[in-house]
Order: sequence, then structure tokens, then C-alpha cells
Amino acid sequence: MVVILKEHAEEKKVDQLLGWLELMGVRASIIKGSHTTILGLVGDTSKIDIDSIRAVDIVENVTRVQEPYKNANRKFHPDDSVIDIGALKLGGERFHVISGPCSVESEEQILEVAKRVKAAGATMLRGGAFKPRTSPYAFQGLKAEGIEYLLEAKKITGMPIVTEIMSIAHLDLFEDVDVIQVGARNMQNFELLKELGKSKKPILLKRGLANTLEELLMSAEYIMAGGNPNVILCERGIRTFETFTRNTLDISAVPILKKKSHLPVVVDPSHATGITWLVEPLSKAAVVCGADGLIIEVHNNPAKALSDGPQSLTPDQFDAIMQPLTQLVGYTGRKMG
Amino acid sequence: MVVILKEHAEEKKVDQLLGWLELMGVRASIIKGSHTTILGLVGDTSKIDIDSIRAVDIVENVTRVQEPYKNANRKFHPDDSVIDIGALKLGGERFHVISGPCSVESEEQILEVAKRVKAAGATMLRGGAFKPRTSPYAFQGLKAEGIEYLLEAKKITGMPIVTEIMSIAHLDLFEDVDVIQVGARNMQNFELLKELGKSKKPILLKRGLANTLEELLMSAEYIMAGGNPNVILCERGIRTFETFTRNTLDISAVPILKKKSHLPVVVDPSHATGITWLVEPLSKAAVVCGADGLIIEVHNNPAKALSDGPQSLTPDQFDAIMQPLTQLVGYTGRKMG
Amino acid sequence: MVVILKEHAEEKKVDQLLGWLELMGVRASIIKGSHTTILGLVGDTSKIDIDSIRAVDIVENVTRVQEPYKNANRKFHPDDSVIDIGALKLGGERFHVISGPCSVESEEQILEVAKRVKAAGATMLRGGAFKPRTSPYAFQGLKAEGIEYLLEAKKITGMPIVTEIMSIAHLDLFEDVDVIQVGARNMQNFELLKELGKSKKPILLKRGLANTLEELLMSAEYIMAGGNPNVILCERGIRTFETFTRNTLDISAVPILKKKSHLPVVVDPSHATGITWLVEPLSKAAVVCGADGLIIEVHNNPAKALSDGPQSLTPDQFDAIMQPLTQLVGYTGRKMG
Amino acid sequence: MVVILKEHAEEKKVDQLLGWLELMGVRASIIKGSHTTILGLVGDTSKIDIDSIRAVDIVENVTRVQEPYKNANRKFHPDDSVIDIGALKLGGERFHVISGPCSVESEEQILEVAKRVKAAGATMLRGGAFKPRTSPYAFQGLKAEGIEYLLEAKKITGMPIVTEIMSIAHLDLFEDVDVIQVGARNMQNFELLKELGKSKKPILLKRGLANTLEELLMSAEYIMAGGNPNVILCERGIRTFETFTRNTLDISAVPILKKKSHLPVVVDPSHATGITWLVEPLSKAAVVCGADGLIIEVHNNPAKALSDGPQSLTPDQFDAIMQPLTQLVGYTGRKMG
Repeated sequence: MVVILKEHAEEKKVDQLLGWLELMGVRASIIKGSHTTILGLVGDTSKIDIDSIRAVDIVENVTRVQEPYKNANRKFHPDDSVIDIGALKLGGERFHVISGPCSVESEEQILEVAKRVKAAGATMLRGGAFKPRTSPYAFQGLKAEGIEYLLEAKKITGMPIVTEIMSIAHLDLFEDVDVIQVGARNMQNFELLKELGKSKKPILLKRGLANTLEELLMSAEYIMAGGNPNVILCERGIRTFETFTRNTLDISAVPILKKKSHLPVVVDPSHATGITWLVEPLSKAAVVCGADGLIIEVHNNPAKALSDGPQSLTPDQFDAIMQPLTQLVGYTGRKMG
Repeated sequence: MVVILKEHAEEKKVDQLLGWLELMGVRASIIKGSHTTILGLVGDTSKIDIDSIRAVDIVENVTRVQEPYKNANRKFHPDDSVIDIGALKLGGERFHVISGPCSVESEEQILEVAKRVKAAGATMLRGGAFKPRTSPYAFQGLKAEGIEYLLEAKKITGMPIVTEIMSIAHLDLFEDVDVIQVGARNMQNFELLKELGKSKKPILLKRGLANTLEELLMSAEYIMAGGNPNVILCERGIRTFETFTRNTLDISAVPILKKKSHLPVVVDPSHATGITWLVEPLSKAAVVCGADGLIIEVHNNPAKALSDGPQSLTPDQFDAIMQPLTQLVGYTGRKMG
Repeated sequence: MVVILKEHAEEKKVDQLLGWLELMGVRASIIKGSHTTILGLVGDTSKIDIDSIRAVDIVENVTRVQEPYKNANRKFHPDDSVIDIGALKLGGERFHVISGPCSVESEEQILEVAKRVKAAGATMLRGGAFKPRTSPYAFQGLKAEGIEYLLEAKKITGMPIVTEIMSIAHLDLFEDVDVIQVGARNMQNFELLKELGKSKKPILLKRGLANTLEELLMSAEYIMAGGNPNVILCERGIRTFETFTRNTLDISAVPILKKKSHLPVVVDPSHATGITWLVEPLSKAAVVCGADGLIIEVHNNPAKALSDGPQSLTPDQFDAIMQPLTQLVGYTGRKMG
Repeated sequence: MVVILKEHAEEKKVDQLLGWLELMGVRASIIKGSHTTILGLVGDTSKIDIDSIRAVDIVENVTRVQEPYKNANRKFHPDDSVIDIGALKLGGERFHVISGPCSVESEEQILEVAKRVKAAGATMLRGGAFKPRTSPYAFQGLKAEGIEYLLEAKKITGMPIVTEIMSIAHLDLFEDVDVIQVGARNMQNFELLKELGKSKKPILLKRGLANTLEELLMSAEYIMAGGNPNVILCERGIRTFETFTRNTLDISAVPILKKKSHLPVVVDPSHATGITWLVEPLSKAAVVCGADGLIIEVHNNPAKALSDGPQSLTPDQFDAIMQPLTQLVGYTGRKMG
């Protein structure tokens, strides 16, 4: 940690600050310039709240040198984490496509879609039972019933299921769910993250619409600090001024997260842009950038989709893009599924 | 609602769309141009999911004409809402300053600050018992104990208290809290909003860091649709590329929210910028733009603040800015407190 | 300047870096931590290119301690700059409202508007002769003819005129213009800034849509470094994700620029939001935040405005807002005009 | 164009608007709803200024149905444009890597880099002679001398050269330059675009840091409307809240620009992120998303680079990434160079 003091800082106050830092167990080296004094803090600074130093009135600025995440940090875990999801493994040599409708609408629908995406090469089934909707008047999901239908589809197809949780109060319903998804709007719902840290279930953590990659890693850290190492990071687009796409896919997130962390990274090209014809090129970009998987929305009748329709492919369109994707995954030296 | 069809849309599909719209209870007028066909939908379009129309493959674009919020909409409630908070009234001729430390740290601290801010003219006491922190290793608040200290300060000073909720699971602890705050990171925690809609307590709803004003009003709508009309909107800065301030205060939000909605609007200049010396000018800007109140952080010893230190004023600094603020509030024809 | 080295930096390379720094005339103090080595650079670092240090492969990060602007920096010029514009003074106790149409459309139009805004209290006349338009097919301004009409209006009303330059090639046409405006899109047109640095004319420099306040001050520095100290800074809204307003007025820019720089600051509420009814509240916010003036668009027949219509007030609307604005300016202890 | 009228619009005013529209040569179909009236404009609306309609006081909103660009629009030019650059062709089956240092620093440097990047597979040489720098005190490029060195390198290696123009005043110096680059900061320097429209030289047009894709296409339209069809679009990152990378590469821009326009699209991964180790994955993403080329910075001694050092690869690093890139280009069915 580097502390830059204000010009003309009172010596008495500098001494008080140095005394307090010593109490906190860190040693400060002092560099005096013509205008500025710089303190270089050496020792374990992880317990020092950067804001409480910034608050001292003689302090101009504070810069952290070390990353504030530990469990999620590749420095301390050089090897890629591989997460077991049923019989599948995410994060190693295998590449997985998670697919399914935005919302579960009926048993027939989810079964039909599950069979189609499995046939096309998807290895996990996604579907929303609890739906976060901007409007209280929009369809909010089938809830418990939706999870039942997903479990039915799992029984029939053998695919692990991924579905979103919106409240701690619903946790019991997720007992047989394979991967619990935390949506972008709940990425900093810290009480939810803490609760999921007590579980051992794989958690698919989506990046918030205005959250930095460091904040995403800090939210992963919440789950991991609680004892659950099974976190999957998901880039799904951020909010910018561009209006052509619903959000802007930050493709750099993939190589950055893979370098900074050992956790697997998946990309959601459907939500990132909200445009069907962008799913294929963005999926390919994710593959060559080193992502470990994709989440792609597929609906058996997009025109009737009760939520997020425009970004859903038909099963036929999904078939069509899975062929070149599988080939590209092979080209990069990995195996699909 | 205006639906713009793609060029060369199949007539059969157009007929199907028109049939479905009729079923939904809206009538479509058709305008044929040389390149484009436009459908103007007339009738109650509030139940139509805009996305499900956008998903139809012959549709190019859909534009909503009417605002999607009703309870929060000034069109249907022309008069300003006035919210009762104990004996106080927020939203009418009175202007309120809500003040206190970011975090409750001890009984002495909150009492000391409460007395000082009351003496300076604040009418409500704020203080965080549950603290949303980016890092799991940072101080998370005194929780239940913090609320106890706030209630003690309320008993002694008579000031209503405002404090943040982070989970439905803690709702019982908020029974004697006067105003429940929903923080920026939980603005779209829809399950929490629904639960608060069942209460009658005033809810202070903060705008999310990357949320539009329409989304803020839709989150208010969640609470109001549940039966709780007592929502206070709060502008607290949005995320932009500017790095000098922590966030960018969107001052236009005040007159826009006041025009579009009848709900009271308060401004939080402390969190918006994270810089102490900006609190006074931004508070004044809020007053002249028609805000109904302010939330200002004050700490009895900012250098020791356990969270969000740099944005906290000392009680002396708070005294100093309350004088010109009170005068300015009077100048605008309102009364402080 | 603080240089943070990478872990395990080769000692030989560290020595080379230190040698090079010594050559550049700065002294480096070294702090060795368990994981990191920090160099604190002492001396005149203004000639060191921060990027060339960041490029060194053993360097993790570099932080600048001192602001990179000098001429524009209040540290070295504690008193407010007061800029002479004809007989007027901008930047001291006086507050100025610059007003007029977005585009000059005809001699009658500009004369009519000039008389009306002068009568209402405006002290300078603005009007676009060269118009930066997103589309090559949109009206591009009357150009030389527009400047002639402005000069005619100046002769008749006595008001100094403010108009935008878009190219060095047009500089001759601006000989009798009182204030040359550099638009947001040209804020980093450095060749234009250099050329204007050779002039002595007051330059109204608008902040770019995605430029930080430091970048704005650096663009002012370009003009000042060339020998022209007469720069007026203008906040006119930045680009964010919010779609209700065309841009987001960053009101914090006013107190920040006033603190960091001695240059006068004006606010353009018309372009910042593109909404007529926001001009009054945002103008008031600018006044109480310490701005030295406003630029407000007024058009004698907004419905016919050839450009930027929606943000223009009618002369009657302008009259109506000038009364409370003048009163508020007086309230803050300054004088209008 | 769709015009939505305000509730309770005066009939007389509606008639006036309809009359004016008729004069402008468009026909309006009227749809009356319970709350709103919608006008669907049919005919050639390209000459109607959208803002002048929005300015009419009875108008609530106006939506454009057709794209405002014509020359750049794929609708009117279904085939990919192929641009001749010396003997090379950009935009068809061939994929080009443009490479070289950020700034030309000396004849030896540019020659050395040119030979190395040519040997590695680059087909065009880039290098900045005029450098847009935020600070007036930073190195501004070798200017005319820099162009001379580039031309010398062209003579020796046979590679066409690409270099940035910053002012119309320098146009004569670019006579033998093969591709003139317009930098991000000048994307809306409309006077410069108009001047380049009179040339026949290929123009590499970089997207501005806060410009939408539609605005980029409108800037291309400026050049094309002037008579120069040889425009190459370049995505180079946009400004967002994320601080890990200098800018955020908007990879979706590639498939969107390719779909909406027939112009070739290149990607600049070096400037987009400012991080050397991101160049390879982002280059691959550009290839699989359908880009026609890349601009990659290479410097013979990055540690000494006078500008933009950290994003430059060494020639050895460039060699190392050109192998997998060439292979991937082949995999996608195109040929390098």
C-alpha cells in the first residue's frame, strides 16, 4: 500500500499516523520529496481498510499494490480450478455449452428444448424458474413449479440443470439443482453470497451491469471465504452508452479473469447483446479467448417466449451454430462436453 | 405502442401477429410505407410484454408510448405525495436533512453524533447497522447491536431513524426503525422490494449505480404495487468514466423525478462523490433543483471511521454548512425540518 | 511519481531503470516489501513520460502524484482569473448569461433574438455559424454569412459575440468575434488548440462527451502553453447510460474545476440535457455551485429551428427564467452582467 | 419516421404540422389512440431534420425507422467493398495485419521494425508522425520528418504505409502516404472528414471513445458523401467505467458493422486495452468475428518507446502471435496478406 501525504502535512499528525500504522502491524518507509511525502507500507496490509486511511486529513491519496482477493487469486492457486457438476467437469480441457430457454414456461416446453439442445451438443440445461423482471407487472416465472419441470427434464435427459436464485428464502427449493445462478442484479447482494458460501453447490456468478472485474472477483471471494470453492464466473455484458446492443460484451474480461483467477469463466452472448444473430460470432470470440463455456438461450418458439424473446435462438438455429462452435473448440485443442 | 415491421414481411405472418394482438385486447392501425409497415397499437397495452413482440421475426422494432409505471406516475396522482415519518412530513413544504455516520460503531458514537446533528438542524438520524461492503474482509456493521444503538439514540433525541436493510431475513429487526433504506446495490433485488411492499413503513429507495431513472421508478412501482405507497426516491450518483469523483451525481434526476412522479426525492451528496468538500455545493444544487431532502454523512471522528471515511463531515463542518443550507431552503420558499 | 515494481524484478534491470531515472534528473528512493518494491521519484518529474516508465517490463504500475497541468493549476495561480471580453469581465464578481440561437439562420432572426435576450438580461450573444452535425446531410450553418449577421447584431446591440470554430482554415473569419468557442467534439483537436494558443482571444473550451476533468484542464493547458491565458471552461454534459436526457450534466465539475483551476467556468444546461424544462433548475444548480456564467439557447421560433430545436427556449420562456436566476445570483453575493 | 404527439394536442397545431410535412414531400398517416396520436410518415424522409420535428411543442417523440446513412449502408450495396491499397486488397478474402510502432522515432527504428514485422507476416506498416497527446508537454511526433522516414521504409520494404493526420493544414505531406488514418479524437472533426472526402486515398476511420456505431457510420458517410468511397472502419475500444483496461474493446462492433455496412472493418487491440498480453486473444476474437484486418503495435525496444509504450509488443512477441493468427485466419477460410 502506498500512501501519499498532502503538501505541508503537520509533523505531529504524520507521527500519529505512523504510530497507528505500527499498531496495525505494518511498517512505513518514508520518502520526502520537495512537494510531497510518500509512505510505502510494508507487511500484511490486508486488514487495513483503505478508506480509513484515506479519511485521515493529511492524506492525499492511497494506492493498493496487492489485489484484495485471495481465494479467487491465481497467485495463490496457480492451477485452473476444475468444478464437478454431476459427472461433468467444468474448467479443465472440456468446454461446456449450457443451453435452454430464458424462462421455464411449461413441462412440455422445457422437455422439448432440453431434448433438442442435448441432441445438438449442449451438456447442461438452463431455464429460469424465478425471473428478475424490471416491471412488477411482467411474468415473474413459474417459481417452484418451474424448478420441478427442470428436475423432470434432468431426470429424462440426464443433463445437470442451472437456474437462478433470487432470495435466500427460496434456498430449499434448490436442493436438487446442480448449479445455482446468481444474476447480474444480485452480484452484490452480499447476504445472498454469504449464504451460498455455506453451500458446496457450484455457483454461477454473473457480472453486474456496472461492476468492475475486481468487484466480480470480490463477490466470488465472498462465496469462497464462506467455504464454497465452486464458483464459476460469467461475463454477460456491461452497460455503456452504445444503444445498438442492449449491453456491451466485454470480451477482454475472459483473458483477464483467466489470468487473475483460477476459476472457470463462461460467457453469455445472449444476454450480453439481446440480438440473436450476434450469438454465433460472440460465442466464437469467447472460445478463442479461452472461455470454459457458454450460456446460450434457446426457445422452441421464440415468438411466444414470455421473457427475453429476441435473444433466443430456435433449436434449428442452435443446431446450426453448434457445428462450427464444436469444430472451433476442437481447433483450440479442447473437447466439447 | 408502435410496432415497426421488417421490410418484405410475409403477409401471412403479419395476419397472425394482428390476430394475436386482437386476442390481447388491442387494436392495430396499419400504415404502409414504401419500405416499412408500421402498426400503431391502441387500447390497454400495459399487459403486453414488449419483448414478446420484439421476438416475432417479422418485427424490426417496438417503441412504448406510455410510461410503464402507474402507481409512481404523476399523471395519475398530480399532487405531491407527503410521507409521514413519526411526527414529521416529507415531501411537502418542509425540507429535511437526514444525517449521521455511515456505520454505527458504538453507542457513544451514535449518541454523540445524533446530538450534534440535531443541534445543527438535522431532523432524522441515519446510521448503517448492516453494511454492504465490496470485500468480505471489511467491517460488515454491528448488525442487531447497531440497530439497538440507533433506537437508543432515537429515544434520547426524539429523531426518527433511517437504516439500511440487506436481507429479508433481517426484517424483524427493523420493527421500530422509522425509514427502511434499500441501498443502490439492492435496487433491483426484486424479492426484497416485494417483501417491503407488504409493509407500510416508509422505504428510502436508492438509485442503482447503473440504473436509469425509469428503472428506479419501476423499482418504486414494485413496492407500491404490493400495497406500500410510502416510497422516497434517492439520487446518489451513477457510474461513469470520470475518475475524479467516486460516482457522478446526476442532478437532472431531481427535476425529472419530480416531474414524472409524485414521490418525494432526496439527494445523497456524500456517497455520490466521496469527497467532503463537494457536499456543500451539491447540497445547494439539490435544494434549488427541488429536492425534498438530503442525506449527509457526519462522523464525530472521521479519521477513525470504520467505513466510507473520506466522505464524512465532522460535526463542526456539518454545523458550518447547515447555516447556508437552511437559509437557501428558506430562500426557495420552504422550511427546514 | 510512484513506481511499483513487479515481484521478482531482476536486480540488473532495476539498476538500469534507476540509472535512466538519474539521467532524467530525478532521484528514486527505494522501499522493499515482502512482495513488492516501490520507487518514490523525487525531483522535477514533469518531463518524464509516464507511459515510457510503464512500458518497462519490470514495472507493475506508475502513479502520478502531481497534477500534469501547470498554467491552468490554481496551486500556482491562487487568484481567480478574470477575462476581459470587450468591456465585460468574466470570472470575478460578475455572473454572465450568454444567450442566443443554436444556429444563425438569418439576419432578422439573430437581430430579433439578440434584442430579446439583451432586454431579458443576457450580456453576450451566442449563435452558431459553423455547425458540427452528425449527418453530412443536415444543415451545416450559414458559415461566413452567419458570422456577418452576428457582427451586425453586435454592432446594433453592443453585445460581444461567441461563436464556434471548426477548423483552423476559418480562423480569419473570426477576427472580430469576441469569444471563440471550441465545441465538445473538438476538445482534443490538438492542432486547433495549438493554433488558438497563438491568439489572445478568449476561448470558450467545452468539455468533450467522454473526457475527464483532467483531460479538459490538459486541453486548456494546450492553449495556455501556447501563450493565450484567456480560457473559459465549459461543462456541457457527458455521455452515460441514462437515456432520458441526451447527456448527463456533471454538476460536480463546477466546484471541482473552480478548486483545481483559476479559470472561469460556465455551464451549458441546454446542450447538457436537450430538454427545455430542465434549463431553469440546472441553471440554478450552476449558480449555487459557483459557476461564473451560463450558456442558454434561445430561439425566436423554436418550432422552425434548423438545428437542436428541442433544447431552445422561446424569448418569453427566457424572460421568465431570467428573473429568478438574477435574483438567485444576487442572493449568492454576485451581480448579473 | 414515426411521430408521437402529446396528449391533448391542439387540433389547429396538428393541422399546421401536417401541412408542413406535406410541403416537405412526405405523407402522414394518423392513428388516434385513447391517450396518444401517432403519425406514420411515408415518403422520402431523409431531408427532414428529426430535431426540427421534435422541437414542435405538440410533439412527444420522434423515431427514425430508416438508417440515416446511405453510402455506407449495406442495404444499398450488398457486396463487400474491397479497397485497393497499392497492390493489396482489403475487404475481400484477404486478411491484413497492419503493424509498426506507435510513434516514428528515427529512421533506424522504423526501418528495423518494418523489416521485422514484414518478415513476421504484416502487410502494411503503421507509425505515427503526428501524435495526438493529452499533454502539450509530451512528445508530439517527428511530423514531416516522421513521414519521410516512413516513406523511406516503404521504399525499402515495399509495404504500404498508414499514418495519422491531425489537421487539414498537413494534407500536402500525406501525398505519398497509402492510407490516411483519422484518430479516435478526430472522428467527429467534420471539417477534416469533408476535406478527406475530396481525396481518393483510403481513409482508416477510428471510432471515437464515446461514439456509437451509428455515429461512426455517419462519419464514414461524411467522407463518402464527398466522393471518396475508400473508407476502412476501425474499432479501437470505448470508454466505460472498467478501469483494468484503458478502454473496453467492443467486439460486437465487428459483426454489427459488417452487417450494417459493406465497408471493411479492422480492429486495434493494442489501443483498445493498453495491455500487451491481451493483444493475442483479442486479435483472435477479431478474426473469428469477421474482421478484415488488425492494427498491432510493435516496437523494437518497448522500454524506450516515446509514446504508448505498454501496449507495444516486441518484434519477437509479434512473431510469436503471428503464427497462431495466420493459422486461425486460414481456419476461417481466408488468406493472410
